[in-house]
Amino acid sequence: MKLSAGDIASALRSIREKGPVVHSITNYVVMNNTANALLALGASPVMAHAEEEMAEMVGIASALVINIGTLSPAWVRAMFRAAEAARKRRIPIVLDPVGAGATSYRTRTAQELIRAVPPEIIRGNASEIMALIDRGAKTKGVDSSASSDDAVALGRALHEACGAAVCISGQTDYTIGKSGVIRGQNGHVLMTRVTGLGCTASALCGAFASVTADPTLAAAEAMAVMGIAGEIAFARSAGPGSLQMHFIDALYNLSDGDIEARARIEAEP
Amino acid sequence: MKLSAGDIASALRSIREKGPVVHSITNYVVMNNTANALLALGASPVMAHAEEEMAEMVGIASALVINIGTLSPAWVRAMFRAAEAARKRRIPIVLDPVGAGATSYRTRTAQELIRAVPPEIIRGNASEIMALIDRGAKTKGVDSSASSDDAVALGRALHEACGAAVCISGQTDYTIGKSGVIRGQNGHVLMTRVTGLGCTASALCGAFASVTADPTLAAAEAMAVMGIAGEIAFARSAGPGSLQMHFIDALYNLSDGDIEARARIEAEP
Amino acid sequence: MKLSAGDIASALRSIREKGPVVHSITNYVVMNNTANALLALGASPVMAHAEEEMAEMVGIASALVINIGTLSPAWVRAMFRAAEAARKRRIPIVLDPVGAGATSYRTRTAQELIRAVPPEIIRGNASEIMALIDRGAKTKGVDSSASSDDAVALGRALHEACGAAVCISGQTDYTIGKSGVIRGQNGHVLMTRVTGLGCTASALCGAFASVTADPTLAAAEAMAVMGIAGEIAFARSAGPGSLQMHFIDALYNLSDGDIEARARIEAEP
Repeated sequence: MKLSAGDIASALRSIREKGPVVHSITNYVVMNNTANALLALGASPVMAHAEEEMAEMVGIASALVINIGTLSPAWVRAMFRAAEAARKRRIPIVLDPVGAGATSYRTRTAQELIRAVPPEIIRGNASEIMALIDRGAKTKGVDSSASSDDAVALGRALHEACGAAVCISGQTDYTIGKSGVIRGQNGHVLMTRVTGLGCTASALCGAFASVTADPTLAAAEAMAVMGIAGEIAFARSAGPGSLQMHFIDALYNLSDGDIEARARIEAEP
Repeated sequence: MKLSAGDIASALRSIREKGPVVHSITNYVVMNNTANALLALGASPVMAHAEEEMAEMVGIASALVINIGTLSPAWVRAMFRAAEAARKRRIPIVLDPVGAGATSYRTRTAQELIRAVPPEIIRGNASEIMALIDRGAKTKGVDSSASSDDAVALGRALHEACGAAVCISGQTDYTIGKSGVIRGQNGHVLMTRVTGLGCTASALCGAFASVTADPTLAAAEAMAVMGIAGEIAFARSAGPGSLQMHFIDALYNLSDGDIEARARIEAEP
Repeated sequence: MKLSAGDIASALRSIREKGPVVHSITNYVVMNNTANALLALGASPVMAHAEEEMAEMVGIASALVINIGTLSPAWVRAMFRAAEAARKRRIPIVLDPVGAGATSYRTRTAQELIRAVPPEIIRGNASEIMALIDRGAKTKGVDSSASSDDAVALGRALHEACGAAVCISGQTDYTIGKSGVIRGQNGHVLMTRVTGLGCTASALCGAFASVTADPTLAAAEAMAVMGIAGEIAFARSAGPGSLQMHFIDALYNLSDGDIEARARIEAEP
């Protein structure tokens, strides 16, 4: 497995040309920013959560992103319906297990979703990924409290258990899939002070998975683009408020040259 | 029918003086930006969606805006209750049929709302408007996939079927009402890369309808103000992130002179 | 009772060191900005509203903030569950009675919450606070339509009725508690043109209550930090859009020197 800056730029170009519809069932906190990030990237966001329209809405989408950040029974039912519809249509599914480990409702919902309809990509922080395997792991809110280095072995275990490419974001982003591990070093720590950039990363995984067939590569491409846009935005920012705004602008303006100059990615078999 | 820059400026002044309460039942994705746009305009937003308080909340409002962007059965019931309360109080109702045509749940809900409590203004993109008449029209997500030119005849058909002023937004904004068609040419294409500016436009239609008696004029005034603020914002923006921010600032600072200098409106009987 | 700029700076430092988890059950309109404000302050926001996970989620929190801005029966049940869990764990509870007085559903919900599980802090505008005592008070939407001067006596009455520190925000912020009244003069009127800065203030009350034992002092600290960050942001803003962004940046960058130079607080027994 190899992933070059050129591959990332080419995938981004493909998103901008095709404008893939990414259906997101995501949490209330981040919906607006997630939709704006998808639009800035060149994708076409759709957000809907009623069981009544799930199959039809998934029917016009090129990828489905399920984020469990604000759950309720009705939404959980809709998530299962959406996942089943996506599986039938063979479009990629991304799962963001926000807060898995923090409550058993979240851990259980994420585990049941994985069991019922295995997603192509699971993206979370180390605590969340660990919670999906090891019920003993504790999550402090929705932030990571485990080092990514400890988690990569567990990520591999989750990949082996369910087949998904597992993306563990943190100072280093690890993507573990069928053909190996990709390490990404892009991004800036101030991004953790903006709510929902992890959720945005999962949404971008959906967009990239609609144009890149290999889920491991798609997730690594998304993380690189997130990180590079975050670095460019950070350089112009005076704090997390302006970082959020410049991040959206940077995503929109991201050029092949930006990706070439900044991508810090390492793949191993 | 005539609509001058002076009329628009005068309506905006009236909103700023009266601070009309605009009750919005809108989708989760855009609530924050919609509320901020109404505040920047000079109106007073209220957002509530529980059946339990619908009649009372509508009771303090000067306009009601119903946006079907994220539906669920409980919200649909609340929308009907709110519309009935608004009709009793004779305050204007604006309907934004977000995603009509994308799923039958949305198309049906919008059609039933129109049938049960005909709104004063319906604002959507061409696909959405077409979906309300022609079940064959397809919506690609919530974006327009039909040209506004094709849609204006259908807009007239919808107006004739239900009596509402029908506003079809796109590169040209068409407002079709009892006394003719108004074409607006303000705005910038980058606005389509910010989520929910269409929803904001519908909210502004509500604010203008609370001060301008003729719904066709009110909708055209709102679209002109949206477009002019968008143009001013675009000139200061580096992408869709900063466009959103400058748009709110521009709405807040919009002067008679800005409107006079930029309004591009054409009315025909 | 005394509250110095040094106390405020010290409480803020303590939040930044500890990163307290603040669990917010808040309205859809403001979730994103509230989470971002808590992150910028140095706290760790959690937002969850399902009864199924309430007790567990409150179990990892250092403060609970309940905001009734967008109610529904399921959310009201979750609010009671969360309040009971917080009471058991003896973590501080903040109640923001958004729109109390506007509908009886809101007034009743806030009153029942106060009766069932008396909060440590209640923060609202004058109309909302009055509505909790005097059913005759009318709220115009969620904005204040009563002067803070009239309201302070009612605030004292509410404090005496339920024991909570009562914070009435307006041009002057009054905090009335066990040991007296604190008047804060920070802030800028343009902050009222940004949706949800009142809700943000309540969330910050939660963060400060997790590090400052006296609820009256905690609320006054939060209001001072809000107001100071708002003033700094206003000086850099061209309107309410940029104010919101600079506000988050200002919260993040707030220094001891800023607080020392700007705090305008007066306490009386």
